[in-house]
Amino acid sequence: MDDTRVTVWNEFRHEREDEASEECYPDGIHAVLAEAFEERGFAVETATLDEPEHGLTEEVLDETDVLTWWGHTAHDEVEDEVVERVQQRVLDGMGLIVLHSGHFSKIFKRLMGTSCDLKWREVGERERLWVVESGHSIADGIEEQVVVPNAEMYGERFDVPAPDELVFVSWFEGGEVFRSGCCYRRGSGRIFYFRPGHETYPIYRQPEIRRILGNAVEWAAAGSGARPEFGRAPEPPEKR
Amino acid sequence: MDDTRVTVWNEFRHEREDEASEECYPDGIHAVLAEAFEERGFAVETATLDEPEHGLTEEVLDETDVLTWWGHTAHDEVEDEVVERVQQRVLDGMGLIVLHSGHFSKIFKRLMGTSCDLKWREVGERERLWVVESGHSIADGIEEQVVVPNAEMYGERFDVPAPDELVFVSWFEGGEVFRSGCCYRRGSGRIFYFRPGHETYPIYRQPEIRRILGNAVEWAAAGSGARPEFGRAPEPPEKR
Amino acid sequence: MDDTRVTVWNEFRHEREDEASEECYPDGIHAVLAEAFEERGFAVETATLDEPEHGLTEEVLDETDVLTWWGHTAHDEVEDEVVERVQQRVLDGMGLIVLHSGHFSKIFKRLMGTSCDLKWREVGERERLWVVESGHSIADGIEEQVVVPNAEMYGERFDVPAPDELVFVSWFEGGEVFRSGCCYRRGSGRIFYFRPGHETYPIYRQPEIRRILGNAVEWAAAGSGARPEFGRAPEPPEKR
Amino acid sequence: MDDTRVTVWNEFRHEREDEASEECYPDGIHAVLAEAFEERGFAVETATLDEPEHGLTEEVLDETDVLTWWGHTAHDEVEDEVVERVQQRVLDGMGLIVLHSGHFSKIFKRLMGTSCDLKWREVGERERLWVVESGHSIADGIEEQVVVPNAEMYGERFDVPAPDELVFVSWFEGGEVFRSGCCYRRGSGRIFYFRPGHETYPIYRQPEIRRILGNAVEWAAAGSGARPEFGRAPEPPEKR
Repeated sequence: MDDTRVTVWNEFRHEREDEASEECYPDGIHAVLAEAFEERGFAVETATLDEPEHGLTEEVLDETDVLTWWGHTAHDEVEDEVVERVQQRVLDGMGLIVLHSGHFSKIFKRLMGTSCDLKWREVGERERLWVVESGHSIADGIEEQVVVPNAEMYGERFDVPAPDELVFVSWFEGGEVFRSGCCYRRGSGRIFYFRPGHETYPIYRQPEIRRILGNAVEWAAAGSGARPEFGRAPEPPEKR
Repeated sequence: MDDTRVTVWNEFRHEREDEASEECYPDGIHAVLAEAFEERGFAVETATLDEPEHGLTEEVLDETDVLTWWGHTAHDEVEDEVVERVQQRVLDGMGLIVLHSGHFSKIFKRLMGTSCDLKWREVGERERLWVVESGHSIADGIEEQVVVPNAEMYGERFDVPAPDELVFVSWFEGGEVFRSGCCYRRGSGRIFYFRPGHETYPIYRQPEIRRILGNAVEWAAAGSGARPEFGRAPEPPEKR
Repeated sequence: MDDTRVTVWNEFRHEREDEASEECYPDGIHAVLAEAFEERGFAVETATLDEPEHGLTEEVLDETDVLTWWGHTAHDEVEDEVVERVQQRVLDGMGLIVLHSGHFSKIFKRLMGTSCDLKWREVGERERLWVVESGHSIADGIEEQVVVPNAEMYGERFDVPAPDELVFVSWFEGGEVFRSGCCYRRGSGRIFYFRPGHETYPIYRQPEIRRILGNAVEWAAAGSGARPEFGRAPEPPEKR
Repeated sequence: MDDTRVTVWNEFRHEREDEASEECYPDGIHAVLAEAFEERGFAVETATLDEPEHGLTEEVLDETDVLTWWGHTAHDEVEDEVVERVQQRVLDGMGLIVLHSGHFSKIFKRLMGTSCDLKWREVGERERLWVVESGHSIADGIEEQVVVPNAEMYGERFDVPAPDELVFVSWFEGGEVFRSGCCYRRGSGRIFYFRPGHETYPIYRQPEIRRILGNAVEWAAAGSGARPEFGRAPEPPEKR
């Protein structure tokens, strides 16, 4: 019985404005992700851009162990105040999973400190996701590679800090590679960037991908540890 | 209900040959460690140097999720064949926790590839173990520092590879510092080096130290992930 | 003959407003740092907060290989536009050395993505700076430890990402430890955080500290490498 | 004027026993590598397996800043005593560059502590070597990718410790990826594993590959830093 609380955040624009996207994810990408996490036994809520405070109030975040983030066309519409709130919660120990085009979200760029830029091409080519850290819990139950039949290509150079743990590297039909599964520790929280996903390909319906995402939630929820004390410490532990 | 299987390995010489050590750990260091792990709910076995194959037969290792290692005066008596067996099991996913003077054990040096040398002094000085990675599960439930009233000093330079995750740094009364909690991933397994401990100080009876060791077992047992396939792969996944 | 171009940036407030600081650094901390870098053979310029654009115009940054940053009481007065400019130059390959209280500067927090918070105490206690990565070029020519007779204490937890390379760990008389020399790669640039320094202690006049700072400039200037291409890449390298 | 001293070590068997290899490297792979390093301005010596002590006497190693290693069919013939000698020199600060099939050499396995196993296929497929750490000096002067027209495939999982710095990731025509440029710090020395190379493909005649190898020598030679002192330290720096 797992009581991890996941909040699935979605920009939720493509699926209401683009026919191909609506066909692929009629109730929104968040609905399909939520279903995957519920199957895994997590307690799941969803939140979207157009809700007040984007659905990410203090109360919601306080009851979230792991937040997943999907955005693409409206990164700029996310209010800075909410971004700061999410950042603070991550530093205080909340897990964050950033999906695909979320690489360009305000929250990911802010937590990374870099441009998070990359190379891309959208022709539906094949992606092979190879496990490079075989003992990692995020790869648990996964074969040595996962094939995504049709994917948007993301290629290196991916301008992020070298990940604390690199779990997956992708191969693309067109000739590129990409660090597709990147783990970071920031503050007392954990961040996982996961490349696969797209608004018009049913990648989040693929069982291996759902397995990885569930593993990632468990990994990201595991942050806890010691609570740091900051600031002035006038009394030295050692008296002389 | 945790069914993690821990094997506590001990050289078990000091406690039978040295009066101060016998007084501190009358049934051997392994007995006190075993008790700590049983309190935590793990399934615990012990093994010692003077047993056949040092108590570390294939069968024993096959049923071990995490092996803890305490040795000091008889590192050279550990047979190379057993060392290789343990190394192989670590690469296949078993966890390994190396304690204090185990830094100079054959198994640790072999897995690190370096001299594992350090500076030391034995005058019973105070040690302060500070948490530097506050979100790490091995620091879960621990205050920002743990005080060890009487410790043998280990000082930098500690000649190991930079740890994949550095959890604790020690302060010593005499002026030195030490990277005291070091996490490594090797093959599909996980290794944790933990500095505190000594044959004549009751450090393994200290509640915070026992908590850390229990956390470390859980961390080290979490290796699993994808099973790698090695060797000749004549058929390319991509046919042209 | 080294033609590395260093720009020494200083907030330059303490030295004009506080008597003890003026006495210690009559022409400003930047003057003493500039002298140290000139002795080392670098081409040095200085810039301060109260200059237009804080002395950090596009032209100045374009001709800077390594920027050093000292600020303390006026972090908030640094304009966001200049911070963004410096960040962009770092990602494009400029080196950045952040000194002591610069841990709380806008530029450092932005590049790290964390709070960069820590514990502190100002009683002039002794600091011992130990080398933990003995083969690192920033420690070249340095003994195993450097003693700073009177220092402001900074203590862990230091809320930064785990450094890509950890060179120094400090011991303090009062009982704390600190990761005092932290290397980061961000974008195509390199960042070094160096703890020692203070507005009323003559730490930047100390020969070993100057040696380390000169080494750090050489390290930080060494970024170059491949120029990444980002964005849409419609033509796959592989044609089928 | 660079006075870096490089010793190029070669097993030198293929080129004398296999026609295709002799045609590709008539004077041995070491001759072509030596030529590349001489062009770069290094002082170069060569050594081969069948020389006394494999050409790696104490005197030779004492005058070597960076050793490059190519072996394939006769790893087992390298004497353990020489392997230990090389390991010790690396820990004392010598650079080591391990090439292609050298992943299975005794010296590399000993320094890594893992199996160093991988997946392979020899059909002369195309390899694309992508730069993933754009600011790294080993990628200096290199475009974002290097194409090797005909290569033996090496595929993940590559069973090595996560590299301290990952510079290149390879894409292969047949569908695999590989971490092809891996930097490690061990003791006071630096190690670079570089995948490209083969006894029957003229890869070491390719200008970009030679550029990378020259950059790697400069990187590996840069180890120096503080000389650590190990062992008993009876006098604490702090007297009370």
